[in-house]
Amino acid sequence: MSQIKYFDAFRIGDVRMSASRTITESDIVTHAGHTGDFFPHHVDAEFAAQTPFGQRIAHGTMIFAIGIGLAAGEINPASFSYGHDRLRFVRPVMIGDTIRTRITVVAKEDDPKRPQCGRVTERCEVLNQRGETVLVSDHIRIVERAA
Amino acid sequence: MSQIKYFDAFRIGDVRMSASRTITESDIVTHAGHTGDFFPHHVDAEFAAQTPFGQRIAHGTMIFAIGIGLAAGEINPASFSYGHDRLRFVRPVMIGDTIRTRITVVAKEDDPKRPQCGRVTERCEVLNQRGETVLVSDHIRIVERAA
Amino acid sequence: MSQIKYFDAFRIGDVRMSASRTITESDIVTHAGHTGDFFPHHVDAEFAAQTPFGQRIAHGTMIFAIGIGLAAGEINPASFSYGHDRLRFVRPVMIGDTIRTRITVVAKEDDPKRPQCGRVTERCEVLNQRGETVLVSDHIRIVERAA
Amino acid sequence: MSQIKYFDAFRIGDVRMSASRTITESDIVTHAGHTGDFFPHHVDAEFAAQTPFGQRIAHGTMIFAIGIGLAAGEINPASFSYGHDRLRFVRPVMIGDTIRTRITVVAKEDDPKRPQCGRVTERCEVLNQRGETVLVSDHIRIVERAA
Amino acid sequence: MSQIKYFDAFRIGDVRMSASRTITESDIVTHAGHTGDFFPHHVDAEFAAQTPFGQRIAHGTMIFAIGIGLAAGEINPASFSYGHDRLRFVRPVMIGDTIRTRITVVAKEDDPKRPQCGRVTERCEVLNQRGETVLVSDHIRIVERAA
Amino acid sequence: MSQIKYFDAFRIGDVRMSASRTITESDIVTHAGHTGDFFPHHVDAEFAAQTPFGQRIAHGTMIFAIGIGLAAGEINPASFSYGHDRLRFVRPVMIGDTIRTRITVVAKEDDPKRPQCGRVTERCEVLNQRGETVLVSDHIRIVERAA
Repeated sequence: MSQIKYFDAFRIGDVRMSASRTITESDIVTHAGHTGDFFPHHVDAEFAAQTPFGQRIAHGTMIFAIGIGLAAGEINPASFSYGHDRLRFVRPVMIGDTIRTRITVVAKEDDPKRPQCGRVTERCEVLNQRGETVLVSDHIRIVERAA
Repeated sequence: MSQIKYFDAFRIGDVRMSASRTITESDIVTHAGHTGDFFPHHVDAEFAAQTPFGQRIAHGTMIFAIGIGLAAGEINPASFSYGHDRLRFVRPVMIGDTIRTRITVVAKEDDPKRPQCGRVTERCEVLNQRGETVLVSDHIRIVERAA
Repeated sequence: MSQIKYFDAFRIGDVRMSASRTITESDIVTHAGHTGDFFPHHVDAEFAAQTPFGQRIAHGTMIFAIGIGLAAGEINPASFSYGHDRLRFVRPVMIGDTIRTRITVVAKEDDPKRPQCGRVTERCEVLNQRGETVLVSDHIRIVERAA
Repeated sequence: MSQIKYFDAFRIGDVRMSASRTITESDIVTHAGHTGDFFPHHVDAEFAAQTPFGQRIAHGTMIFAIGIGLAAGEINPASFSYGHDRLRFVRPVMIGDTIRTRITVVAKEDDPKRPQCGRVTERCEVLNQRGETVLVSDHIRIVERAA
Repeated sequence: MSQIKYFDAFRIGDVRMSASRTITESDIVTHAGHTGDFFPHHVDAEFAAQTPFGQRIAHGTMIFAIGIGLAAGEINPASFSYGHDRLRFVRPVMIGDTIRTRITVVAKEDDPKRPQCGRVTERCEVLNQRGETVLVSDHIRIVERAA
Repeated sequence: MSQIKYFDAFRIGDVRMSASRTITESDIVTHAGHTGDFFPHHVDAEFAAQTPFGQRIAHGTMIFAIGIGLAAGEINPASFSYGHDRLRFVRPVMIGDTIRTRITVVAKEDDPKRPQCGRVTERCEVLNQRGETVLVSDHIRIVERAA
């Protein structure tokens, strides 16, 4: 459940793929109620039928939160989350789509404030069942260097 | 509920403040189950008592999703969400903290792909009950120009 | 689970008491998300501390829905719900209060539209752990007469 | 989010319409669990197929709570909710129906107990996607008079 | 709601049947989030389409918990639950199946540790809408003897 | 996420420990609504204060479902769950207790019906933060033999 992995052990190009999960109407209803975002694109089927998508679409914040959650596997006690860059909502996710997350190490840098740490950037790509990217972000993690 | 606001009507420096909401233990349990992220920082009180925070903290993705949800007021049919830049988890949010979101227009640009639209960047600052920033991001919206 | 009880079997003055249930913070968060009502009286502890109640209070619609739910015991296939008169939010319900519902048959009348049925009015009184009434309504049921 | 509106500013005949929301199977399951009302009309598809409606129907208390929630927009600090008269469950709501709420000011009266306030009665009509009324109630609000 | 029933009043062969409830996609999503079990058999429709069942199936622990919950009717203050023997997941439950629980008293024994009590074994059979058994267990209750 | 492990690879005495999770009031409210079991031991704080435990306790079925969920790590495509023997509710779990699950391989047997498989019995012990066993069961898995 918990496995220390120091900055030095991350290699650019390392890839891992999460499990998959089908996005349901229930998830969208839960997310609307959880966040208070009841925009008609998400919860009004009559309105959504008139949009170019022709149906309700998932909240971008939900695909982000579930996409990141899918990738939450082992805990790395030597790391914490700093933030995300270039988070983009690339394609809509519809009820019944099945998503998974691909994590690729794309950069390693010194941390300007913490000499004993480095920054690891992991590209998070949320994919649907057709392999299309629906959301992307660059996750920046602060990771301790091996002593 | 729905009010068209064109690119031209956004002014740099415009500020609006959302309503407030107290983050509860129930929200954290819901978010863990909603996203599948059961990291012990969020759901294991014994573990959390040993961390520097001394208690469970909210998921960053939850503060982002609720913070954005709090700011979801009127629908602007002339606008859609493109993504977020520089999303940062600045301070932890604990059970019982009360958050609200301040939205400030910080940039306006041409949209390179859509001449009939522009890009509006809104800084989203999620604040706690002491006025401290807990999360920040730059929300990029694509907004139609008035015909 | 299901027991036919005809109009003729209802007697004015009959009383039954439901089980009890403690209203939790989790219930209020669920109700806000279920209904979209995030008014600060219910979800903003900082705001609520400044009100005369000094704390968050339960939604009136939640106490009504749970109060009626508590009284939902056996199904009477000879009856359906017509509506409620004089629904009143008498006292606030706070987190940690324990409510139960007392049902009293207070009126029986002919049904003007359905000669084979009558109207039974049941007073619903939702009580807290101190026996104080927090909500009251007159539930009108349309009940078949015995053949 | 918050806007004072005194008794004097309410005008009989004023109408406002809420946003819309599609009632899902997930909402019914949530409401059953939230209230403890697992009557087969709501949660047993086999039973419901034998009823005149031919399918599961939403709880009346849910349509009331969501209908009122949809109409919860700006907070009026000069007003509080007193209760509802003539709440009627007019038509069933099925999974997939989309509801919205029309609020019409229908009466203004002195408040017998509070001379500095008046009573405003707002008719709440919950409509489905065909414009049919599914629920109606008269919401009584106690509103302060302008000083 | 509460009815004392002593050991002596249980008779081998006594049978009671619970109400029925349709298992929904929403229940499965809720159970995954409630327990943290996001195995693809339950939440990944693409994966499930490749299994012999051809679709997502309910968690065994959910059918157990809901099956027992369906049978929770009157409280017997003279009894408490000791455990279950021979819990078996006999058939899968799919989204849309409707389950109910049949409880049969199958054994009565002295309680080795508590002379003032006996053990009552109730066979719990969870059935689907075709009358097929989907789950079975032998529920052991410790019940006081009449004084 | 998925790792084949054949019957032959299981060794009696193998032990693994799950992550931990704090049981919250929100979990109990969710479980009551999820299963329909609103027994006062779980949801009525006034009643529970009069019991020997002095407070509300978690549902046994919830500790079972969450305890098993905590142990759901890697998927073993060569295995499926047959059932549980000797499930016992050993100690109550209170709001705020933190549980984890210890899985020990305690038996290996031929499967009487499937010669290409064997039965592996894993003892599931759910422990609280004091290391006390709160629930135990013997989980029987049917596991393929290596070809």
